[in-house]
Amino acid sequence: MTPTQSKRKKIPRDREDDYTPEAAEARRAFLREQTGVGLEHVSHHSFDPSVLPGNVEHFTGVAQVPIGIAGPLLVDGEHAQGEFYVPLATSEGTLVASYNRGMKTLREAGGVKTTVLDDAMQRAPAFVFDSAREARAFGEWLTEHFAEVKQAAEATTRSGRLRGVEQYSASRILFTRFDYTTGDAAGQNLAGKATAAACAWITSNYEGISDFYLESNFATDKKSSQINVLRTRGKRVVAEATIPAALIEEQMHTSGEKLLRIRHVANLGGFMSGVNNNGLQSANGIAAMFIATGQDAANVAESSAALGFSELLPNGDYYASITLPSLIVGTYGGGTGLPTQRECLELLDCYGSGKVRKLAEIVAATVLCGELSLGWAIMASEWVKAHDLYGRNRP
Amino acid sequence: MTPTQSKRKKIPRDREDDYTPEAAEARRAFLREQTGVGLEHVSHHSFDPSVLPGNVEHFTGVAQVPIGIAGPLLVDGEHAQGEFYVPLATSEGTLVASYNRGMKTLREAGGVKTTVLDDAMQRAPAFVFDSAREARAFGEWLTEHFAEVKQAAEATTRSGRLRGVEQYSASRILFTRFDYTTGDAAGQNLAGKATAAACAWITSNYEGISDFYLESNFATDKKSSQINVLRTRGKRVVAEATIPAALIEEQMHTSGEKLLRIRHVANLGGFMSGVNNNGLQSANGIAAMFIATGQDAANVAESSAALGFSELLPNGDYYASITLPSLIVGTYGGGTGLPTQRECLELLDCYGSGKVRKLAEIVAATVLCGELSLGWAIMASEWVKAHDLYGRNRP
Amino acid sequence: MTPTQSKRKKIPRDREDDYTPEAAEARRAFLREQTGVGLEHVSHHSFDPSVLPGNVEHFTGVAQVPIGIAGPLLVDGEHAQGEFYVPLATSEGTLVASYNRGMKTLREAGGVKTTVLDDAMQRAPAFVFDSAREARAFGEWLTEHFAEVKQAAEATTRSGRLRGVEQYSASRILFTRFDYTTGDAAGQNLAGKATAAACAWITSNYEGISDFYLESNFATDKKSSQINVLRTRGKRVVAEATIPAALIEEQMHTSGEKLLRIRHVANLGGFMSGVNNNGLQSANGIAAMFIATGQDAANVAESSAALGFSELLPNGDYYASITLPSLIVGTYGGGTGLPTQRECLELLDCYGSGKVRKLAEIVAATVLCGELSLGWAIMASEWVKAHDLYGRNRP
Amino acid sequence: MTPTQSKRKKIPRDREDDYTPEAAEARRAFLREQTGVGLEHVSHHSFDPSVLPGNVEHFTGVAQVPIGIAGPLLVDGEHAQGEFYVPLATSEGTLVASYNRGMKTLREAGGVKTTVLDDAMQRAPAFVFDSAREARAFGEWLTEHFAEVKQAAEATTRSGRLRGVEQYSASRILFTRFDYTTGDAAGQNLAGKATAAACAWITSNYEGISDFYLESNFATDKKSSQINVLRTRGKRVVAEATIPAALIEEQMHTSGEKLLRIRHVANLGGFMSGVNNNGLQSANGIAAMFIATGQDAANVAESSAALGFSELLPNGDYYASITLPSLIVGTYGGGTGLPTQRECLELLDCYGSGKVRKLAEIVAATVLCGELSLGWAIMASEWVKAHDLYGRNRP
Repeated sequence: MTPTQSKRKKIPRDREDDYTPEAAEARRAFLREQTGVGLEHVSHHSFDPSVLPGNVEHFTGVAQVPIGIAGPLLVDGEHAQGEFYVPLATSEGTLVASYNRGMKTLREAGGVKTTVLDDAMQRAPAFVFDSAREARAFGEWLTEHFAEVKQAAEATTRSGRLRGVEQYSASRILFTRFDYTTGDAAGQNLAGKATAAACAWITSNYEGISDFYLESNFATDKKSSQINVLRTRGKRVVAEATIPAALIEEQMHTSGEKLLRIRHVANLGGFMSGVNNNGLQSANGIAAMFIATGQDAANVAESSAALGFSELLPNGDYYASITLPSLIVGTYGGGTGLPTQRECLELLDCYGSGKVRKLAEIVAATVLCGELSLGWAIMASEWVKAHDLYGRNRP
Repeated sequence: MTPTQSKRKKIPRDREDDYTPEAAEARRAFLREQTGVGLEHVSHHSFDPSVLPGNVEHFTGVAQVPIGIAGPLLVDGEHAQGEFYVPLATSEGTLVASYNRGMKTLREAGGVKTTVLDDAMQRAPAFVFDSAREARAFGEWLTEHFAEVKQAAEATTRSGRLRGVEQYSASRILFTRFDYTTGDAAGQNLAGKATAAACAWITSNYEGISDFYLESNFATDKKSSQINVLRTRGKRVVAEATIPAALIEEQMHTSGEKLLRIRHVANLGGFMSGVNNNGLQSANGIAAMFIATGQDAANVAESSAALGFSELLPNGDYYASITLPSLIVGTYGGGTGLPTQRECLELLDCYGSGKVRKLAEIVAATVLCGELSLGWAIMASEWVKAHDLYGRNRP
Repeated sequence: MTPTQSKRKKIPRDREDDYTPEAAEARRAFLREQTGVGLEHVSHHSFDPSVLPGNVEHFTGVAQVPIGIAGPLLVDGEHAQGEFYVPLATSEGTLVASYNRGMKTLREAGGVKTTVLDDAMQRAPAFVFDSAREARAFGEWLTEHFAEVKQAAEATTRSGRLRGVEQYSASRILFTRFDYTTGDAAGQNLAGKATAAACAWITSNYEGISDFYLESNFATDKKSSQINVLRTRGKRVVAEATIPAALIEEQMHTSGEKLLRIRHVANLGGFMSGVNNNGLQSANGIAAMFIATGQDAANVAESSAALGFSELLPNGDYYASITLPSLIVGTYGGGTGLPTQRECLELLDCYGSGKVRKLAEIVAATVLCGELSLGWAIMASEWVKAHDLYGRNRP
Repeated sequence: MTPTQSKRKKIPRDREDDYTPEAAEARRAFLREQTGVGLEHVSHHSFDPSVLPGNVEHFTGVAQVPIGIAGPLLVDGEHAQGEFYVPLATSEGTLVASYNRGMKTLREAGGVKTTVLDDAMQRAPAFVFDSAREARAFGEWLTEHFAEVKQAAEATTRSGRLRGVEQYSASRILFTRFDYTTGDAAGQNLAGKATAAACAWITSNYEGISDFYLESNFATDKKSSQINVLRTRGKRVVAEATIPAALIEEQMHTSGEKLLRIRHVANLGGFMSGVNNNGLQSANGIAAMFIATGQDAANVAESSAALGFSELLPNGDYYASITLPSLIVGTYGGGTGLPTQRECLELLDCYGSGKVRKLAEIVAATVLCGELSLGWAIMASEWVKAHDLYGRNRP
């Protein structure tokens, strides 16, 4: 049952058409032979492999990830309006229940207001020169020639638009961020292709670039970074809600003051620990929605960055908000067209054209529900539970 | 097709047994009625819902995520030895191909050496006092009473062991990190439960704690943080390889010097941009393996943190390494026992007891292959491709 | 008057004894000849250059930095008790007035409580190996041989004690932090010398270290870092005060709620901007006290890191605290014995042996006064002033 | 000798004219009475207190900080050209010698090339609204009304110019950075005053701002931050040099390869430790020049941030550079006109109008010399010295 350690065996591949049931079965047979594992469940899927080019290579089967439904989530967005049933693909117990509970409370509080603040997808080439002065001169040239650069970039794409080029310099290097809007696609590939074309134009029209790299840690694709928290990657979305004092007491058996105090203690903790997120569990809701709706799960790395901010209002109501500064979502392209993923997008009426901001709003609203739900859990139950076990609170 | 905005409808739930095909179908019927979406593919799964308690609530169907196979990956670990075929669940085209190419080259280079450096799972309660001096006094008491605290914590778990309690202080608050080893489980729940019990003992035996919170941003569960990069969360694993100069030239059509230069430029970029990862695409491989093998995909947030370090050897060979300081994996519990996920773990001979470090090593080795593969892609192709399109390099 | 661009002229130096009035005058004469600048004020000092060996080379005169006095500062420390008049050397107008105002208010509030939480000075060698496994093995050996390492380190110093050696690993490198207590000296040199000796013992007794560097960015001397915020460098000191609601209204014409709200907004700002200090002006008071009392002004870089935390008490009083996690001070060695600097230390009864924690407490208490004073200024005046100028508030 | 703990004594102040020798002496007499300290040296200064208004309050005497001279420093800047003798005010032994040694080597290497890349001083008001949408709408309005905002800001200043207003949003708050050029002044006060006026215009002309704060941790005055590393505060200056391989061997007894290797190890260390500076000792040179030339020493906190980048050239020469992204300097205003400070500026031909970029270049060039000098020290001496003491290298 252990992997063979003898002679190397190459994974079978059909050079004619590798996206057939037969090609997948050939690989499973090969793996069975190599490892003794039957792969009965993995082989079980409801679609034809011919839908998969552009999504996976060496297709061998599927992971079946359980989907739970939470909701209804009441959203008061500019793009998402009304109640939504949110599909969450996860294997972590209590996750769906936790979001569901938060959705219930915020529904009773009047729903979640959502706002997309910004929208930008990047590729970040670096240009190296013989000296800092030449890097600076190039930066000025680049600003002056933005129109041509934009034309070269946009020639490669129907939906992408180059919004601008940010410049950051150090030593003899100019780091740039090419910022695009990308329509309903998440847009990394589009941004990559357009930037490659723009750079080809640049390097053909500017003398003196000693080296150039298409990426240099300034887009921080699939990585958490301060720059993306500051400058946005994907969608920058805010979800806000105000919870009446009475509701807090009734449903959470606590008060706004107490909810706020734990936030302030945790903010200090997070400031010391160097965390990229002063919230609680944004990654849970985001990962579960990403898997369900065909987003790139690797983008959980940066999409889960979050800025929580809450206040107690003079009347005792509690204002809560979460800002997702780098939420990478699409409703077109990538995994969004795969059969189960498409169905989940359709559940939210978010499949296809003109829907990406709606999806971003629903994700943010969902995240806020999870923040509140876990916040109360930490507040309300554990302290008590612990005391029940051991002491003080015992009769 | 839009969500009904009229009167609220509650998601159906079977209070007797909610983990049946009928309960799932009732929810799908409800969603069909609410949204008009058929959910035909989502309904298609190969297992009985009775396996799901502890993994999901409101089970309604599955996301089918395509799995591609990469390999063989040659690993020279302390726990993983030999060749492995790595299941990657993804909808991102080229991901499997990219890892597969890296695995081929490193196989020819002699394989990937892997080492688990450390192992720690945390829960991080904060204790608030009336003044800083009282917080300091409590810290001393806590050190002195470690044995009792450990006993209280470990009474709740068979496999968890409390290694130690880190202390970080600010103002009148003592932030702590309770560090556990957790056997083959990822261990967050275990650590939470054990710490709650430990805190119950503490709060029952120490006078003067004015407030206490079970979590306060010092474990940074599902969040990227400097503290976890420094102090480990989950497994701290290194993957290393040395690639002969000839192989670099032959397969990548570049040189070690050039590979290294882009790394140094990108390191400077990452230092400025405040990224948590000076590597390239760790999140891709990690997310794809996590989904395939039943890990918690939300942990991609912290597990994808990475420290790359490469050097050119005097003979021109290229030493490459990646360190994953906070890789959260388990081979027991969570989603690891779900049908397709278990099969994928079995493919790697990583299902169940005594396998968690083996899995950690395979993940790290896989990540290194992806780093090298994407590194060359950035180096070798795009610059040339761009030039071919527009100019300079044209005949 | 411009620097000569002709032939190079070497700065005069007396090989017999360079710390004489004549040697200093020879350099001034040289500079006069080279630049035409008279240096009349620079030449004016009240001490004999013979006191300067170990403090400066090429002594040529002095910078006269104006000292203002603020106070009395009422401190309720474990080492500092009572009222202090604090010397602040600065050329920034309003600085002394701002601290003085804060001291007045906190005096009326009952004074500042101060607590030294921790004490550690570091040198941070890195050890490079052929592979990660060897780095791990070395780490284990180092732990086992702590007694010998400690002995080798302490053989070089009377007052330094090696508290422990922290380990942080990545790739095939073990980064360490050698933590010392250093008596009344700031202790960087002591720590450097002791660690060099310890490393000599280590490298003589352990085979297989491929390279070793005495410093590697893990002590972050004179640099701000997360590690020093987390783990302490120099003294970790807290200053706390509680300001009665009436006093806030009477003296600041504002309320605790308003003071707190600006802090929370600024905390969010600081979390996004990646600042190392969520307070306001710690660097002002620290730099001014450092120059006055002969501390190393370069250490302002890390000493000014600060963690502010405030709360509104149920009765409306305002609890304010500041934590300085890496305050580098000494009352012995360095510039503390220079004539004006020593007088300033004596003003605080902080010169010489057994005084270093007292000084740390006074610095922290001073910093807290400045935080509050500037906080009100931002709150109270500017908004109003601006409105007076232009509008709204005009009659 | 201890501070009196009895009844409070107020510091004497002359309401008519507090900037006289008598007023200063009255304070010294008071301090003598309170503390028993003579303050003989502190009383010793060469200027009349009447020059001090705007620089200090409660003037009581001076700190005499020893100045050593290093140089000549050979600079090939756009503003600084030729050789300079650099005054360093410090009490840290070896500092002057270390910089002097670096200056010698880089002089022989052909000097230091310097470039000012950017120039911006900030004040960063935050505007709070009822919801995120209103914050977004305000941001758009602010962009549209930049001309009026600029006019309001610039009406308060002769030399300040508002370059632009950066926007960063989270929750229902718009954080801004008002970016100014400030002529030869460091410009914090100018920027504060101009921004207060701009905000008065804004708040008088825009309905719906629920709260506004003139500062909110986005300018990070006197604090180290990622935003200032990214976006510049004060001057962004680069110093570069290329050191011939022969010179490295002859003067440093090492090689470019070795110099580079320690940098890469230290870069990894710094990436893990969360340092704001991957260089070595920028704070040393900056603090010493700041004190000598009347800069605000508190700005060492942010001015010492540094980005080092070095490369080995194909011919074995060593390219070294340092970028100071947030160097706060002025040649006018603040402490620059104080007697000794002005003389030190004159030594560099940097006093007064049109000199600020020249000064910035000289500071950066000085810093680079110190980086190299300390780099070799770490490389060359300590390892050997340690070995001589204990072992291996002994005959």
